[in-house]
Amino acid sequence: MSTSTLAHEIAAPAALPKFPLNQWYVAGFAWELKDQPLGRTLLGKPLVLFRTADGRPAALEDRCCHRALPLSHGTLEERGVRCGYHGLLFNGDGQCLEVPGQAKIPSKAKVPAYPVRERDQLIWVWFGNADQPQPNCEPPAYEFHSNDDYLFEGGAYHYDAPYQLIHDNLLDLSHLGYVHLRTIGGNASIHMNAQMRVDSDDTHVKVTRHMPGSQPPPTYTAAYPFKGKVDRWQEIEFHVSHLRIWTGAADAGTESLDDPQRGGFHMRGFHGVTPETETTSHYFWTMATNPKDNREAIAAKVVEQTVLTFDEDKGVIEAQYQNMLEFADRPMVDIHVDVGANRARRIIEQLRQQS
Amino acid sequence: MSTSTLAHEIAAPAALPKFPLNQWYVAGFAWELKDQPLGRTLLGKPLVLFRTADGRPAALEDRCCHRALPLSHGTLEERGVRCGYHGLLFNGDGQCLEVPGQAKIPSKAKVPAYPVRERDQLIWVWFGNADQPQPNCEPPAYEFHSNDDYLFEGGAYHYDAPYQLIHDNLLDLSHLGYVHLRTIGGNASIHMNAQMRVDSDDTHVKVTRHMPGSQPPPTYTAAYPFKGKVDRWQEIEFHVSHLRIWTGAADAGTESLDDPQRGGFHMRGFHGVTPETETTSHYFWTMATNPKDNREAIAAKVVEQTVLTFDEDKGVIEAQYQNMLEFADRPMVDIHVDVGANRARRIIEQLRQQS
Amino acid sequence: MSTSTLAHEIAAPAALPKFPLNQWYVAGFAWELKDQPLGRTLLGKPLVLFRTADGRPAALEDRCCHRALPLSHGTLEERGVRCGYHGLLFNGDGQCLEVPGQAKIPSKAKVPAYPVRERDQLIWVWFGNADQPQPNCEPPAYEFHSNDDYLFEGGAYHYDAPYQLIHDNLLDLSHLGYVHLRTIGGNASIHMNAQMRVDSDDTHVKVTRHMPGSQPPPTYTAAYPFKGKVDRWQEIEFHVSHLRIWTGAADAGTESLDDPQRGGFHMRGFHGVTPETETTSHYFWTMATNPKDNREAIAAKVVEQTVLTFDEDKGVIEAQYQNMLEFADRPMVDIHVDVGANRARRIIEQLRQQS
Repeated sequence: MSTSTLAHEIAAPAALPKFPLNQWYVAGFAWELKDQPLGRTLLGKPLVLFRTADGRPAALEDRCCHRALPLSHGTLEERGVRCGYHGLLFNGDGQCLEVPGQAKIPSKAKVPAYPVRERDQLIWVWFGNADQPQPNCEPPAYEFHSNDDYLFEGGAYHYDAPYQLIHDNLLDLSHLGYVHLRTIGGNASIHMNAQMRVDSDDTHVKVTRHMPGSQPPPTYTAAYPFKGKVDRWQEIEFHVSHLRIWTGAADAGTESLDDPQRGGFHMRGFHGVTPETETTSHYFWTMATNPKDNREAIAAKVVEQTVLTFDEDKGVIEAQYQNMLEFADRPMVDIHVDVGANRARRIIEQLRQQS
Repeated sequence: MSTSTLAHEIAAPAALPKFPLNQWYVAGFAWELKDQPLGRTLLGKPLVLFRTADGRPAALEDRCCHRALPLSHGTLEERGVRCGYHGLLFNGDGQCLEVPGQAKIPSKAKVPAYPVRERDQLIWVWFGNADQPQPNCEPPAYEFHSNDDYLFEGGAYHYDAPYQLIHDNLLDLSHLGYVHLRTIGGNASIHMNAQMRVDSDDTHVKVTRHMPGSQPPPTYTAAYPFKGKVDRWQEIEFHVSHLRIWTGAADAGTESLDDPQRGGFHMRGFHGVTPETETTSHYFWTMATNPKDNREAIAAKVVEQTVLTFDEDKGVIEAQYQNMLEFADRPMVDIHVDVGANRARRIIEQLRQQS
Repeated sequence: MSTSTLAHEIAAPAALPKFPLNQWYVAGFAWELKDQPLGRTLLGKPLVLFRTADGRPAALEDRCCHRALPLSHGTLEERGVRCGYHGLLFNGDGQCLEVPGQAKIPSKAKVPAYPVRERDQLIWVWFGNADQPQPNCEPPAYEFHSNDDYLFEGGAYHYDAPYQLIHDNLLDLSHLGYVHLRTIGGNASIHMNAQMRVDSDDTHVKVTRHMPGSQPPPTYTAAYPFKGKVDRWQEIEFHVSHLRIWTGAADAGTESLDDPQRGGFHMRGFHGVTPETETTSHYFWTMATNPKDNREAIAAKVVEQTVLTFDEDKGVIEAQYQNMLEFADRPMVDIHVDVGANRARRIIEQLRQQS
């Protein structure tokens, strides 16, 4: 940071990137790449995502170099994607393999390719800066997509709001009592009076909330045979590209809420939050749960209720963002529950400054 | 006006307000404030309107001071409105009464409140300038909302057009013969050849048109047992926040058209025209009428036909405004019937300059 | 061009027009002018098109000079168009004939008129510059709208794309093999390997493609009793305001593809491409065909399949344009098939510079 301040003093620095670079971001789910190319804008860059015949995912700029039709309007072939206008064919590296009507392929006939990985059912794309166009690490694992104790489903939301408003929402689950009281929330005062602890370092924030001896919310009691009151927890881990949220409950007094191997009813959420543009976002979520009996049906019910809460959050966050535009530059009053979200914002700002 | 010209010469004046200030404007109808907060933007300011448990109306800035969610997305409680995100509670004066999760309420936790009154079924909000933030008068009465001789109904339109185009339309009823010929209009030449008188002072315009010995239009004959030709009148009173329009007819030769107590068939329109923004408007109308027999049914029919004409006006005015944008800065040719509307525009401009 | 370069050196030249002027452009079809005025924006100018009682078409600026309502919201009378707000009446020359409510017609009460012609079922409007406001020629004939050997139908598309992208599309029919393979296209390699010849002068481009001994595409075989392989042709004539495209086929070896009187199955397309604005377009098309037997039914089928291909083209071109905006200022790689389209772009640019 001191270097960048110094640079600031001696020369006009280059414009900062709008988002932290040199990061893997979630581009979608493995199951989305089938027989059609998929167009999706990430970090302001329109991409076409597809698989070649060897099963490997590819991510190219979504623009034919000839007359600019999105390649996502084209068709997939064994060797790559063929443009739907004049039929140019590109492989997964963006090299043009065929120009119909002529034998010679112009040397400029290629489209930019982005580093891409598939891991644990997630597709990740690397967005690097000029110094680090190729990845210097692998994308993170996400073990609950391949753990037999859990059943999971997932989906994607498009948000008309900047991605940090989604971070704010996920890092402060006190809103459950007001926004989601009929499903995963339950009584508001339980959340607002929970014991909260916030830990953080340069790239992570962890918010831990314990609600011992509390009444389980509707979704919990429908999913699990609790005997009465429960010891309930929320553990929220913020990473720059995604959040992991472990919520759950055990019969009161039966488990230590500090034991990472504890039993009880678990909801493990993966939340990949990827900017589409500065003002819009993709939100890729999965919910993994461990019902005791009647597992498929109960997991489906938990996911259904989770989707309800995500719909509610989307309504709130998009209305919030429209009002922030309406009242631009107006200060906000912080309260106690904002501490986790505020730390995440500082991390993003710092990573953005460094990239 | 000379003072403001002088100020112009000696110093850059502060930007003028976009609308006349130090005025009561119509914010809605008494019956709109029930069990949900109501979000509505007036004069460019997003407001939330609601009643507290004592029945009093309140108008706050529609933005929670914590994270900017519109308070109109919240819920009403006995003491005020509770934000639908993190649950802050505000009373009708904009004071925060509760911050869930903490005992202390930050001193900055409040939202601006606007002076508001309920009178004769109308909700009025005061928009003052820095010198006159609190009202120096009460909003006007409107007696026909509580007069047993009349039955009335009302409603609201949203216009994609600046509010002065609605004034223009209401101040020149000669358009009835072209826009509304099938309902309240009737033969066009009756209107265009009517005797017209325009009186005005610094804050009002009155346009009076008499059409003696004319054929009653369809809406009139359906509502009232006229014997044949009628003496018909239109009295339009422009005030900066609203218009009162008294139209009607009596059997030809039976009443003096200058007698304020005259009989016959009456349509008394209240037209609250409140800017939403510089380019959009709210139009709050009621129509009170005095049918002779079968009163409820005939009043309902008159209102139904009135709504038809308002729909037609909205179509015309919004198309007019779009075309004014399309042909920006092009001069308009004035004709005889424009005199009332032009005086109203001068009054608005003068009040704007003074506020 | 050298003159204009010189002017550039000695004085700031006036802004160039956005489109070539001193040209007839297609404004619509004869059958569109019936009992309602028709509002349509051409070359950025909103026009109202209508016929007066003598059957002559008229084109006025679509704005009443009084209060700016589009005249296309009015009604037609024997002498002209009457404004739908206050009833001013204008004739086909834009002169005001009546101002309701007053005897005197203000001298400024008129609206600009544009030169207009009806020829071979097409309505043409002249757009001149200051030196040539009146036409110096007649609009072109189009003989296939009155040739008994052909049956034709037509229609109009609105495009959210600049008009030159439609030229590009029509001048390079190699896209038939990728965009329209199920109808008029057929096997892609036939198109891409066709013999292509491009001729041009200062105002025209002609692209001729011959595909001798090829398999006829689905639309052709459904319409005409070909015996097997065909000699197929495409002749595309670009003019600044429209294209004429003659495609067809004859049984292989039976006709000279250079004979203008040759037989076989013909599809003769008229394509009037008129800018609406710099970024949107009108596309007026007709398709004339010469089926052998069962003429009405087969012609209808050919038109139906033609409409399918136009729908496909519209999807491609609008997606292309959105992507060109997304990737503004990015270079495009030319390939062999672009030569005709590129010459047309040079003609348009040259005519624009001269007007």
